[in-house]
Amino acid sequence: MNIGILGGGQLGLLLSQSLARLGAAVIVFDPDPQAPACRQAAKVYNHNWTDLAALRQFFGECDRVTYEFENVASDLLFQLEKTKPLWPSAAVLQLTADRSAEKMFLQKHQLPCVRFAQIAAGNINAAVKEFGTPCIIKTAQGGYDGKGQWRINSVAELEALAGELERAGTLIAEEIIDIASEVSCIVARSADGAAITFPIFENIHRDHILDLTIVPARIADNLARAVQTVALKAAEKMEIIGLLTVEFFVAKSRPSSSQALQIDNHHLLVNEFAPRPHNSGHVSMKACTISQFDALARILTKVPLIPPQMISDKFFCMGNLLGEVWLAQETEKLDLSAIAQSSQLVDLVLYGKTGVSPKRKMGHFITQGATADAAMASALDFRQRLRTGTIDNDKVGSYA
Amino acid sequence: MNIGILGGGQLGLLLSQSLARLGAAVIVFDPDPQAPACRQAAKVYNHNWTDLAALRQFFGECDRVTYEFENVASDLLFQLEKTKPLWPSAAVLQLTADRSAEKMFLQKHQLPCVRFAQIAAGNINAAVKEFGTPCIIKTAQGGYDGKGQWRINSVAELEALAGELERAGTLIAEEIIDIASEVSCIVARSADGAAITFPIFENIHRDHILDLTIVPARIADNLARAVQTVALKAAEKMEIIGLLTVEFFVAKSRPSSSQALQIDNHHLLVNEFAPRPHNSGHVSMKACTISQFDALARILTKVPLIPPQMISDKFFCMGNLLGEVWLAQETEKLDLSAIAQSSQLVDLVLYGKTGVSPKRKMGHFITQGATADAAMASALDFRQRLRTGTIDNDKVGSYA
Repeated sequence: MNIGILGGGQLGLLLSQSLARLGAAVIVFDPDPQAPACRQAAKVYNHNWTDLAALRQFFGECDRVTYEFENVASDLLFQLEKTKPLWPSAAVLQLTADRSAEKMFLQKHQLPCVRFAQIAAGNINAAVKEFGTPCIIKTAQGGYDGKGQWRINSVAELEALAGELERAGTLIAEEIIDIASEVSCIVARSADGAAITFPIFENIHRDHILDLTIVPARIADNLARAVQTVALKAAEKMEIIGLLTVEFFVAKSRPSSSQALQIDNHHLLVNEFAPRPHNSGHVSMKACTISQFDALARILTKVPLIPPQMISDKFFCMGNLLGEVWLAQETEKLDLSAIAQSSQLVDLVLYGKTGVSPKRKMGHFITQGATADAAMASALDFRQRLRTGTIDNDKVGSYA
Repeated sequence: MNIGILGGGQLGLLLSQSLARLGAAVIVFDPDPQAPACRQAAKVYNHNWTDLAALRQFFGECDRVTYEFENVASDLLFQLEKTKPLWPSAAVLQLTADRSAEKMFLQKHQLPCVRFAQIAAGNINAAVKEFGTPCIIKTAQGGYDGKGQWRINSVAELEALAGELERAGTLIAEEIIDIASEVSCIVARSADGAAITFPIFENIHRDHILDLTIVPARIADNLARAVQTVALKAAEKMEIIGLLTVEFFVAKSRPSSSQALQIDNHHLLVNEFAPRPHNSGHVSMKACTISQFDALARILTKVPLIPPQMISDKFFCMGNLLGEVWLAQETEKLDLSAIAQSSQLVDLVLYGKTGVSPKRKMGHFITQGATADAAMASALDFRQRLRTGTIDNDKVGSYA
């Protein structure tokens, strides 16, 4: 069986491994021959995303195709999925690639959603004034890791950004949430409609990029159940085949949205969807009986799913390794001697990307601990040692 | 970094995945383009094992080379390792590929060893008579999974086998051990001489082929410590760089060997060595903080090792899936619906081999349980369901 993956990043690499462990041959499509997944594929297509002839040939060779990132043009995929099953579908990709469409979907299905407004081009100031400040302005499409987001404290602040915002395409305004925590829930739904969820992941961002993921999330049981119920309903209404990652805000104070879901003294809101394996789900590779990649591989090869569980009663913490770690060491080849002092480290993954740059996701690692705090402390300790060879307690303290 | 693997079987496939997760590019050498690891390699050499020109080119492209099976001609490897590091070395491979050499190594280093004798060609009857019956006759080289082994109850029985034995090459005779259990210990030793061991695996064979592996092994703590001490000493004396799997017999009654190691009322004997990942070590992929493949990948890429630990206080059981399972289903494409009833199943790996035959290793799976018996029962239950879609209690009973 040949399974195609559009995109050759780290998500494609790790998915490719789960697919190969189910006996499938993986074909990767990515313009960059140095992309991580190209090193773990039976065959590689290194062509541009707009090369319809190459995409057609790629689909022709595959039994089923999936994607590991959201910036493939959905109009091409609508054509291509007529030739071979694309899981998740082009319609799901189109929906989840657009913040405005996501929020309308949430509204339509009475799912928890922040208050938002679409902003008409050429009318930004008036639209933001009507929505109210402070607010967050986001591009409807293409933003990630904090790119395409602006916090606006007053309409006056818009002046400085006017040119940038006019060029940024369709925009939406969102209310600012008083965030207690952020969690994600990954749903895996197979072609026969059976759906299961992973344990809930608690996510800590830094500079808008995922920094740490802790599992189990430190939230109350009834809140966890509500998160799973909302995620499952979204996956079902989307009729997704594959993975749906649902990112949530847990708000401390009541948001103005009429669609916030109150559970005791917390307020749950869906932030966004990703119809694919997710950075937060990396922790499942060690913490759970099957990983997010195993789950998607099972769906793609039609192997039955059983609900993933925690493999241990310990807590696990996943930490991202961004280019900054390499830059701190001033090296292309990371010195990993810090591992020797990190007895709670249970996984280290390096993506083998060529070229280090700030904010670039270069790898990740997983620690375990008897408590969430212990797992997190081990993660911060390991990363600090990686950067400097020693622990800087001030930095660890200010961070945790 | 390019790491070469000689051999493209399931061990090569899974090692290739651990290497890719450390950012390495993997080059696989195997005559068969359909070999499992060829689907997860950056580059593949499909040439015969005797093609020295191709082997030279392969070594030339790699920074370091390892092997995943023991039947590569060591004379070629002695030449090739002069060009690039081969880990473990050709000398280690030569030693461990020969039962007679293994046993002389054990004798020399006062490590526990069964009583044995080399059998001179043309003089089998006299040699066996001198050694004493009953005994086991084994080929010194090339045997595996019970191939190249004969149980001899009396010298008279030799008559029927005379022709077969004369053609089988160099032979040895071994005393028959009253086996209480079989365990294996995997040592990982890096280029700087640092060595760590995995938890001890308990192995249950059926028809001379590994059938189930349970971890932690059901042996007393002081016996477990002795196993680890012996395995570490063997790895050190061999000066191995890579993995050394040491297979042990635990005997119920005192063997005649003067080199049996008595621990309380048990007697420990080394059965054989494998200088590579081992079938019993598959269980480490779910049960341990790092797997046997992760450990070897770290050695090959010079990433520091920390001692692997159980990731949970549960027991884990790995079961092999041989061709018989496919033959029982009368299919090339296995019906896996049994998974839905197997809530304790935590891993399923299918090697994607083309061509099903009896005894051929086609995949494996891992279950967990609160006790060793529970994990094992889940494993037998799952495999029975796979074969037949239902549980045949008679078969499970006779088996466990």
